[in-house]
Amino acid sequence: MSTVIENRTWRYATKKFDANKRVSEEDLQTLLEATRLSASSYGLQPYHVIVVSDQKVKEQLKPASWGQSQITDASHIIVFANATDFGEELVDDFLENVSNTRNIPMEGLKGYSDFMKSKLMDLPADTKGTWTAKQAYIAFGNLMQAAAELKIDTCPMEGFESDKYNEILGLNGKNLNAAVVLAVGYRSEEDETQHLAKVRKSKEELFTHI
Amino acid sequence: MSTVIENRTWRYATKKFDANKRVSEEDLQTLLEATRLSASSYGLQPYHVIVVSDQKVKEQLKPASWGQSQITDASHIIVFANATDFGEELVDDFLENVSNTRNIPMEGLKGYSDFMKSKLMDLPADTKGTWTAKQAYIAFGNLMQAAAELKIDTCPMEGFESDKYNEILGLNGKNLNAAVVLAVGYRSEEDETQHLAKVRKSKEELFTHI
Repeated sequence: MSTVIENRTWRYATKKFDANKRVSEEDLQTLLEATRLSASSYGLQPYHVIVVSDQKVKEQLKPASWGQSQITDASHIIVFANATDFGEELVDDFLENVSNTRNIPMEGLKGYSDFMKSKLMDLPADTKGTWTAKQAYIAFGNLMQAAAELKIDTCPMEGFESDKYNEILGLNGKNLNAAVVLAVGYRSEEDETQHLAKVRKSKEELFTHI
Repeated sequence: MSTVIENRTWRYATKKFDANKRVSEEDLQTLLEATRLSASSYGLQPYHVIVVSDQKVKEQLKPASWGQSQITDASHIIVFANATDFGEELVDDFLENVSNTRNIPMEGLKGYSDFMKSKLMDLPADTKGTWTAKQAYIAFGNLMQAAAELKIDTCPMEGFESDKYNEILGLNGKNLNAAVVLAVGYRSEEDETQHLAKVRKSKEELFTHI
C-alpha cells in the first residue's frame, strides 16, 4: 500500500484520547506550518486559528461541545474561525503581503486588486460568510492530514455551540466565528473505535467518469 | 525540512499545465482512493465527484471557467458536487453501509440513526446545502494534498459558472451542484508562477495560542 493510502487508512475520528500524552512543541510547529501553507481562494486565508492547550479553557469548552471527552483529553484543541464579513481590507492586506514577499510595487498589482474586489466585494453578506468558512475547511482538512502523516491522532468536530466558543475564546467583536474544531493528540489504547472497519461509499457510488 | 512541509511547499496553484502529460491510471486510482477515504461529518460523504478526462467535455467546460487554460491543458478535471438537499435517506443509506461493513444489525444502529436525524433533518434548506459543500471541501483539500504527495500538480478553482457545469456534466435533476473544481496534471516548464515565493499570513497573524 502506498504511503498516501496508508496514512489515510490509519487516520480515524479518535473518540478517546490518551489524556497523558501531549503533542511535542516541534510536532505542533510542523502542524501549524502545514496549516499556514494551506491553499485558499486567491490565497486570501480569510480565517483565524485558535490553538488551545490551556486545560482550564478546555474544561470551559467541553460543555459547549456536547460534553465530549475529546475536548479535555486531547493534547490540543484547534479551532478554525472564519471571517464573518470582510471589506476591501481583506484584498488590500493580502496584496501588501504579495508586494513585500515578491518585491512587486503595489502599482503593479492594481489590476489584480480590481479583479479580486470585483469578484468578492458585492457578494451578499451570508455568501461571504459561507465562502470564508469553506476556505477554513480546506485548512482544517489539510491539518488533519498533516497530523496523520506524523501519526498524530485527530478528531474532526462540528458538534459544538459556536456562540459559546466565540464567547470563551474571545472572538466576539472580532468578526470571527468558530466554524470547525480539530482535537489533536494520541489515541487511547482503550478506544475501541480504532479497530472498526472504515465505512465509505464505494468507488462506483462516489465517482462518475466522463 | 520534513516531508510534511516539503510537499506543502512544493504545491502551488498551477496556472499552466503541460498539455502533453497525462496522469497514469495507477496514480489516478490512488488519488481517487485517497479522496474516497476523506473524513466527513458522521462519515456521510454528502457529495459526488465527477472525473473528467474526455477532451471534448473539457472544451465545453472551458468557457464556463472564465476561459482558463487549465481546464483544457490539465490531465483530469475533478469536480466536487455537493448534495443540494437531503432527507432521511442520507442517514439510512449510510447506516446500511455501516451495518454491512461492520456486521452490525440495523436494529443496533437505531439510536445512532435517531441522533443523526435529530441533528440534520430540521436544518434550514440553505444550511443543508452549505453543510454538504463544506464536507466536499474537506475531500477536495485532501485530494489536492494527496496529489502533492505524488508530485502531481493541481490548480484549485472556484472561478467557474456552476449552472453551466451542472448542465454540461448532467447534474441537473440529480440534487447535485458543482461546488469546487480541481485541475490535475503536471506543471508546464513555462509556468512562471512556479518560481514565485509563496504568500501566506505570518504565524503571528494566523494563530492565537491560549
